[in-house]
Amino acid sequence: MKYESLYATALNKASHSEIGILKAKAEGDGFLSLAEGVPASELFPVEQIAKAAAAVWESAGREVLQYGDYQGYEPLREKITGIMKKFGVTFKASQIQLTSGSTQSMDLITRVFINPGDTVLTENPTYIDNRNILRFNGANIVGLPCDSEGIDIKALQAKLSSDPTIKLIYVIPDFQNPTGLCWSDKRRQEFMETVAPYDVIVVEDNPYGEITYTGQYHKALQAYDTKGQVIFLGSLSKTFSPGLRIGWLTGPQEIIDQACLVKEHCDLHSSIPDHALAAMFMDMFSYDDHVTAMCAEYMTRRDALMAAIDEYLPGCRYTKPNGGFFLWLHLPKGITAMKFFEACLTQKVMVIPGVPFYTDGRDEGTLRLNFTGLPPMTIKEAVIRMGRALEICIDNE
Amino acid sequence: MKYESLYATALNKASHSEIGILKAKAEGDGFLSLAEGVPASELFPVEQIAKAAAAVWESAGREVLQYGDYQGYEPLREKITGIMKKFGVTFKASQIQLTSGSTQSMDLITRVFINPGDTVLTENPTYIDNRNILRFNGANIVGLPCDSEGIDIKALQAKLSSDPTIKLIYVIPDFQNPTGLCWSDKRRQEFMETVAPYDVIVVEDNPYGEITYTGQYHKALQAYDTKGQVIFLGSLSKTFSPGLRIGWLTGPQEIIDQACLVKEHCDLHSSIPDHALAAMFMDMFSYDDHVTAMCAEYMTRRDALMAAIDEYLPGCRYTKPNGGFFLWLHLPKGITAMKFFEACLTQKVMVIPGVPFYTDGRDEGTLRLNFTGLPPMTIKEAVIRMGRALEICIDNE
Repeated sequence: MKYESLYATALNKASHSEIGILKAKAEGDGFLSLAEGVPASELFPVEQIAKAAAAVWESAGREVLQYGDYQGYEPLREKITGIMKKFGVTFKASQIQLTSGSTQSMDLITRVFINPGDTVLTENPTYIDNRNILRFNGANIVGLPCDSEGIDIKALQAKLSSDPTIKLIYVIPDFQNPTGLCWSDKRRQEFMETVAPYDVIVVEDNPYGEITYTGQYHKALQAYDTKGQVIFLGSLSKTFSPGLRIGWLTGPQEIIDQACLVKEHCDLHSSIPDHALAAMFMDMFSYDDHVTAMCAEYMTRRDALMAAIDEYLPGCRYTKPNGGFFLWLHLPKGITAMKFFEACLTQKVMVIPGVPFYTDGRDEGTLRLNFTGLPPMTIKEAVIRMGRALEICIDNE
Repeated sequence: MKYESLYATALNKASHSEIGILKAKAEGDGFLSLAEGVPASELFPVEQIAKAAAAVWESAGREVLQYGDYQGYEPLREKITGIMKKFGVTFKASQIQLTSGSTQSMDLITRVFINPGDTVLTENPTYIDNRNILRFNGANIVGLPCDSEGIDIKALQAKLSSDPTIKLIYVIPDFQNPTGLCWSDKRRQEFMETVAPYDVIVVEDNPYGEITYTGQYHKALQAYDTKGQVIFLGSLSKTFSPGLRIGWLTGPQEIIDQACLVKEHCDLHSSIPDHALAAMFMDMFSYDDHVTAMCAEYMTRRDALMAAIDEYLPGCRYTKPNGGFFLWLHLPKGITAMKFFEACLTQKVMVIPGVPFYTDGRDEGTLRLNFTGLPPMTIKEAVIRMGRALEICIDNE
């Protein structure tokens, strides 16, 4: 039987993450990878999680194994309101919709708002996988330039005033994937003042805000929101565990109610035992101390990456990331990211070229380097290999 | 800010489950409910699950807390191939896509195949929540009549030969929700022979097949499938735990690959620790013994329901369900289900009228009664209350 003629038209717009496709090019053993976007497994608080889990089975096993609340386990939603306060915003537990990770949060909010053909503004570059979700659901993506303080306000203003099909703006103000940049408070204020006159929804994706290397949390865009325009996407994937798939979205009650309705059509609710486990962990242990310790280790790794770049990648430049998982490397002028990527493969080191993160697929000679997944000495070795790849590129020029 | 004008058009077709809406009409305390569709919490193997969980954290904690396979944890997919063998079909683990429950399986397969306006054939009555997923995604639902052996082949044949917009057929051959009916083997054969000449996809939803009161498993439609036409939706929600959200779909590799691609756009993957927990439970304990013990208790409850109906609901008739969670009750002629439902509310007993399960919303004086959620004595008390409600209806006639 031929299935192709039966598939939904939207499937033409579905694509596997370009990151996965690039990573698949690493054939053979012995690769070091700065291409992942994963937390360090060795920092997962496994023993504490095991104790919290045992306490859940003991105290609430029969309850959590049963069907549960479509919004997610209420005690965890209460805990999430505490995390949101660190970002300067106050919500009720009823305004938290738990999801199976930020990817699902993005799918839900996209299905609440996007009709095929609607325009969505994003930063350029932006996070590939969420852009793919928007595309799959028929959105027309328009990328806007950014500078070191955040999205370009003039470009935003020009777009908003000229394109009435704009339905939604998707941004990652805190330690963005892929660039690691963090919007200034001033830019957040200007951004919200700029969008306020328009009936558009702002989706603020913030999986990295708690991974801070200055100790500072930044105010969410919602803290500057005067009319209920912003939906915040949060996640425990970077701070606690991605395998558990726990994310949330929060914002105006009416929108959360719609997201919950869509969730009912997606999977009823997420795993209640997992929610109970996370809530119990936060009851029995200090989530804050855990995150602080994780950040301290990641900062060491970031510093190791920067030191190695300074030593082994002459002519490259970058902006020091004050949080998150990524450093955005600019290659010396004249060397394309794709050429460098191919050279890296020959040196058994995996990096992600910036190309697929640009909404227009341009090659600016930029790379996304992850520093959380490997210990400092391995990061150094990976960069030494990149240095050899750089030499190959320069020699071939 | 007014959000309504911003919502996606598809949201007009989203609706909360009518079952939930009906249940919300039970105001005040003291209700007994035959309206749920849940397993009995007291039968969850909590102590064994706690032991299996501890073993997972001990042996594979760091692995399962990390990002995982988009198809789901491989050891659990291996176990699922074993469950599928009981239904007379053999698949490779690569052909199993784990999902966050059957609801998500339905959403995935709908997004793989359905364009707005496509026609989907279903049994009439059929399972409300999956019909709602089809509707939300733009399908046009057409219900076909059933008899005691399954779907009406003549009606199916007539539809297939006259309507070229039919893309998919959604059926629940084993102990259907809501009717409890099970297709005969002969009807399964006839059904597959009837659909084989047409390029349509058959979605076989089977969450109840393992809940059997005769010890017999029925062959899946896939066992009669000669051209890769059938997708099977399975679930651990009825046999193990619905709170954990573990379901699967299996069928031709090409379709499974497309479902996995859509899954990547939905939530990347489901909870890996939950998958590992289920797989470990099946390694350490006997899943089959657990299911057999659960079925024995449910059979006692089914028998209690039938005995109570025979005693306290004169003039009502039903077909004995040989598996699953539900008994389909026919009220005496002239009494509508909605009238009886209202009378039940006054007697503090909750039942679900058949009305919303019919694709055309007709009132045939039928009710869906769940017998798995309450112990036998409570079931009897619930039926005694229904008996009083029936008297009210007869008196008011």
